[in-house]
Amino acid sequence: MLKTTVIGASGYTGAELALMIHKHPELTLTGLFVSANSVDAGKNISALHGNLAGVIDMTVEPLVDPEAVAQASDVVFLATAHEVSHDLAPVFLENDCQVFDLSGAFRVNQDGFYTEFYGFEHQHSDWLKQATYGLAEWNQEAIQKSQLIAVAGCYPTASQLGIKPLLENQLIDTQQWPVINAVSGVSGAGRKASMTNSFCEVSLHAYGVFTHRHQPEIATHLGCDVIFTPHLGNFKRGILATITMKLQPGVTEQQVAQAFEQAYQDKPLVRLADGDLPRLQNVQNTPFCDIGWKVSNEHIIVVSAIDNLLKGASSQAMQCLNIHYGYPELTALV
Amino acid sequence: MLKTTVIGASGYTGAELALMIHKHPELTLTGLFVSANSVDAGKNISALHGNLAGVIDMTVEPLVDPEAVAQASDVVFLATAHEVSHDLAPVFLENDCQVFDLSGAFRVNQDGFYTEFYGFEHQHSDWLKQATYGLAEWNQEAIQKSQLIAVAGCYPTASQLGIKPLLENQLIDTQQWPVINAVSGVSGAGRKASMTNSFCEVSLHAYGVFTHRHQPEIATHLGCDVIFTPHLGNFKRGILATITMKLQPGVTEQQVAQAFEQAYQDKPLVRLADGDLPRLQNVQNTPFCDIGWKVSNEHIIVVSAIDNLLKGASSQAMQCLNIHYGYPELTALV
Amino acid sequence: MLKTTVIGASGYTGAELALMIHKHPELTLTGLFVSANSVDAGKNISALHGNLAGVIDMTVEPLVDPEAVAQASDVVFLATAHEVSHDLAPVFLENDCQVFDLSGAFRVNQDGFYTEFYGFEHQHSDWLKQATYGLAEWNQEAIQKSQLIAVAGCYPTASQLGIKPLLENQLIDTQQWPVINAVSGVSGAGRKASMTNSFCEVSLHAYGVFTHRHQPEIATHLGCDVIFTPHLGNFKRGILATITMKLQPGVTEQQVAQAFEQAYQDKPLVRLADGDLPRLQNVQNTPFCDIGWKVSNEHIIVVSAIDNLLKGASSQAMQCLNIHYGYPELTALV
Amino acid sequence: MLKTTVIGASGYTGAELALMIHKHPELTLTGLFVSANSVDAGKNISALHGNLAGVIDMTVEPLVDPEAVAQASDVVFLATAHEVSHDLAPVFLENDCQVFDLSGAFRVNQDGFYTEFYGFEHQHSDWLKQATYGLAEWNQEAIQKSQLIAVAGCYPTASQLGIKPLLENQLIDTQQWPVINAVSGVSGAGRKASMTNSFCEVSLHAYGVFTHRHQPEIATHLGCDVIFTPHLGNFKRGILATITMKLQPGVTEQQVAQAFEQAYQDKPLVRLADGDLPRLQNVQNTPFCDIGWKVSNEHIIVVSAIDNLLKGASSQAMQCLNIHYGYPELTALV
Repeated sequence: MLKTTVIGASGYTGAELALMIHKHPELTLTGLFVSANSVDAGKNISALHGNLAGVIDMTVEPLVDPEAVAQASDVVFLATAHEVSHDLAPVFLENDCQVFDLSGAFRVNQDGFYTEFYGFEHQHSDWLKQATYGLAEWNQEAIQKSQLIAVAGCYPTASQLGIKPLLENQLIDTQQWPVINAVSGVSGAGRKASMTNSFCEVSLHAYGVFTHRHQPEIATHLGCDVIFTPHLGNFKRGILATITMKLQPGVTEQQVAQAFEQAYQDKPLVRLADGDLPRLQNVQNTPFCDIGWKVSNEHIIVVSAIDNLLKGASSQAMQCLNIHYGYPELTALV
Repeated sequence: MLKTTVIGASGYTGAELALMIHKHPELTLTGLFVSANSVDAGKNISALHGNLAGVIDMTVEPLVDPEAVAQASDVVFLATAHEVSHDLAPVFLENDCQVFDLSGAFRVNQDGFYTEFYGFEHQHSDWLKQATYGLAEWNQEAIQKSQLIAVAGCYPTASQLGIKPLLENQLIDTQQWPVINAVSGVSGAGRKASMTNSFCEVSLHAYGVFTHRHQPEIATHLGCDVIFTPHLGNFKRGILATITMKLQPGVTEQQVAQAFEQAYQDKPLVRLADGDLPRLQNVQNTPFCDIGWKVSNEHIIVVSAIDNLLKGASSQAMQCLNIHYGYPELTALV
Repeated sequence: MLKTTVIGASGYTGAELALMIHKHPELTLTGLFVSANSVDAGKNISALHGNLAGVIDMTVEPLVDPEAVAQASDVVFLATAHEVSHDLAPVFLENDCQVFDLSGAFRVNQDGFYTEFYGFEHQHSDWLKQATYGLAEWNQEAIQKSQLIAVAGCYPTASQLGIKPLLENQLIDTQQWPVINAVSGVSGAGRKASMTNSFCEVSLHAYGVFTHRHQPEIATHLGCDVIFTPHLGNFKRGILATITMKLQPGVTEQQVAQAFEQAYQDKPLVRLADGDLPRLQNVQNTPFCDIGWKVSNEHIIVVSAIDNLLKGASSQAMQCLNIHYGYPELTALV
Repeated sequence: MLKTTVIGASGYTGAELALMIHKHPELTLTGLFVSANSVDAGKNISALHGNLAGVIDMTVEPLVDPEAVAQASDVVFLATAHEVSHDLAPVFLENDCQVFDLSGAFRVNQDGFYTEFYGFEHQHSDWLKQATYGLAEWNQEAIQKSQLIAVAGCYPTASQLGIKPLLENQLIDTQQWPVINAVSGVSGAGRKASMTNSFCEVSLHAYGVFTHRHQPEIATHLGCDVIFTPHLGNFKRGILATITMKLQPGVTEQQVAQAFEQAYQDKPLVRLADGDLPRLQNVQNTPFCDIGWKVSNEHIIVVSAIDNLLKGASSQAMQCLNIHYGYPELTALV
């Protein structure tokens, strides 16, 4: 049994992780932590996430001695703010923990990226180089070997899973940038009080247009420019991404279907919607990514749907763990 | 034209007031104010309430000199916190303004009430005595004469409009206390950031059980004990109150119907749902109170529905203004 | 492994059952059926319930020969309309199947009840007598022995779990009838097209006042009259019941707490909210019932929350199965 | 006073029209009609639309003699199905009524269009030629003169108002087709029972991809190809359209801003969101179209928001009426 610790247990992704660790036959939940100065320190996890009452009975502790926690853990999930992950990951790594980081702190190995998009200068370029991008369906081999998995972002997961099969098979004309329109549930903003996320103010709108940090994350890992427009929707969880692309001349519907089928034939967490288009509801509270598409002459529209807290964060982290340790991919997920 | 000022224009009820003043043929909107230290001071009203763009173009000013504002106003609406109304109302009253206070600061003239339920000691007992309770359908005469209208609370409006016709006609057995179960939209908590009202946390639940300050407001003005259980619902606006009462022996359905019809026959803002029961949606964004009921032997269930921001606050304030000045009751409301 | 069949697989409770059977280590899902003339016959279960894609791959068959299905099954779940369950249950029972009926067809053994509240005359009074009411926490022994479990209704489950501990300990004054106000999600009405349940028409309102068939179900099984007022809420799943009762003179808070604790100390699916009150969200998508209460002098308000499709239907059916066969109570549930 | 009739009063747009006619100082509401065989014939309008109780008290009559209704009317609004409008409009026109048709029956004067996209052959090509497309901000002169106004569709209104200023000023490179992603509230599907629109089934998804009839409506009236992807959102009313376009080389932000400002400087119902992006909530229940945009090098994203039942249907019809008769444009709208 692997001793498994969650840092950042007060948030929504932390709660999902705790629940999956609890279900996983090879993991023992050994600790739940929050920042030392968090108001949530000392509370029972079920006082923060009422749905966990009767399932997990454990105090959320303040992280005062990361070193000691590291020494007591085999596996660490970081469900923490980007800056916090940036600072903590090396501590756990140097103590031989296997680390799954759900933040953006180790996702993009590119000069100036963190300064521009995250507002801090990256201090751990070695670890940044060694980190493996945790897009589970596409980086399986690297995930098996790497000690630090930078789990892919929520929008980037939905987007890339919809684009990569076409891109890899050179079916799209990338001179005309793919247009990604995505709508996310409010939980994507985390568990916190803010005017923007207050119930009466939430209302469908676009935000972060041309400036969202997930645009370069997508573009870098695809190796292709994209236009990415995120929206906030009036629902709690889920992301629906609608991606418009230009096909290369002569590409047929059959080629498109084949590309998707080949890419995901042995990937149990991607469901290809045969002729139909995904509905957000079908993926909410599930670890799946649903993908559907329509072709019209030289254009294709791909729709991709995930639960932002699961396939877009926690369950993909657990999927990476299953891959890394060679457990069946669906363990603790379905 | 009456020069009309709104204090507390950054909130939801303030915005509704601004819009109604704008529509009212006898009123001129002369000023919109917030507390001197509010972050919203200096913004255009439409930057705070986007729906007002293109309708009202006015800066929300910091209230630095209430005396000066009072002298420039004929009518003042206080859409402010209880303590703020408590402090400001006398300033406006002493400057001969007609005051409509939407807070709870002048609603209950009872020893110890404000200390117990509002957490402050009331300093203006003279004004408290002179204040008229603004439950528009029931206090018409007093509203015509009074300089200070303490507009009835949201839950108290829905509750009392459903109970008073039966009580006044002695149709209910008050030894068995009326049981009021009410569900309110989230806007009842005001326009602010808080964990409780954050989109992902809002979920139907009861709160303030046996302790909510609207229980004594209802009981005092009815002259009858009640059990009042408020709930937060997952919608933006509206209150639905379901009231269970015991009838006096021998009371017939006909007597019940007659009591409601007599009470509201010339009250255009109360709609009696003939045989049917109110649906929240029908009153949302309207100034109406919908009332329906069912009788079974010795019990009666009355359901009453209002928009908490309108009939439960702003439109009832305007209705009181119309009554006070003798304008047609529906002016600026329908 | 018990060969397990679901009749009524096109509905929401049928889908939940299929998923739980799939997860259960002692059950094999051997068949999913709908009425012979259903438009859903012949479709894959995942075409009806998209969330099941990638999890359960099975055709929903038309039930043309119940006898044959019975002979191929050890366990049958009836997630069918009341009349259909009434007709089918005997067929399965006489073929030695263990039957869990989620409809109301065998819940109330009282003369004239089905004619008055369900609109049909009951033809199987023998089975009605032998049926055990599936309120899992309270009928454990009978459930162990009975071949026909009439799983408790959704509102009755939430209501009785909140009232029985007080009633059994004679803490409440039943001369003043308990007042149950409950709000249910729209899925309670089943999976079908109707004006009432169309998205734009759904809006909080009371219905079935004094006439809902769950009132006599509750009253009969409690042995105490109650006033039951159901409401439709603007959410998909869950029931929150707020129950107002009069305590016997002299009853203390401590006695109340003790009654709840004793009743549920070894019942893992009832969670007592210590001092707090339940939030619907915490039970949605879970098999739990959350119960909280507040006492004020001679009155008590109990709030009880369940997922109507799970603890109010499918998971309680599975819980009864676990009890019946002696499997750990949480198997396939948490 | 113009005698004004609404055909199709049982639907959501019919109700909105009735309310606006009621408010309009130059119009008298002389009749509300539904199809002769409608179940709603004979009901009071407030029994169909509870929010109208206490405001409009009028029976919805079956349309048995259109000729007679025409002779009793000066103005007719057709809030009817496409085929019904197609058949009825000529009757009213030939009786000298001024007709505002909210359906798609007279919007696109193109060979084969109705056969392909509406499934019927158009029989009134003369009227189709004479009809004026009711996109109020862009066809003012023609609207003033025309007897038949084919009010623009909901998606086409949101889309064209966001694209036309750029297109008319030749700021966009139309070789790369504008990509319109739009999300509509469920009321867009009309007031009816259907599985797709049942509360529990509604969930964000794309539909009608590459096949929706609003694509050719937009393309024809713009004179430019577009990719149009409609989505159903989990809200009752409103449309948010996000439009991604390529700018002509060298086009500056200033030129873009200027184009929008010039186009809408004297158009009171278009609100340009200065630097900000529209939020759906701000236009719900209003007659406004909010437009915002962001430029990044050679790309521009325009976001446009309307209430689908108002600016996307009824209030735009009334706006066209105001323009046609020379009344102030905001009459009965704000």
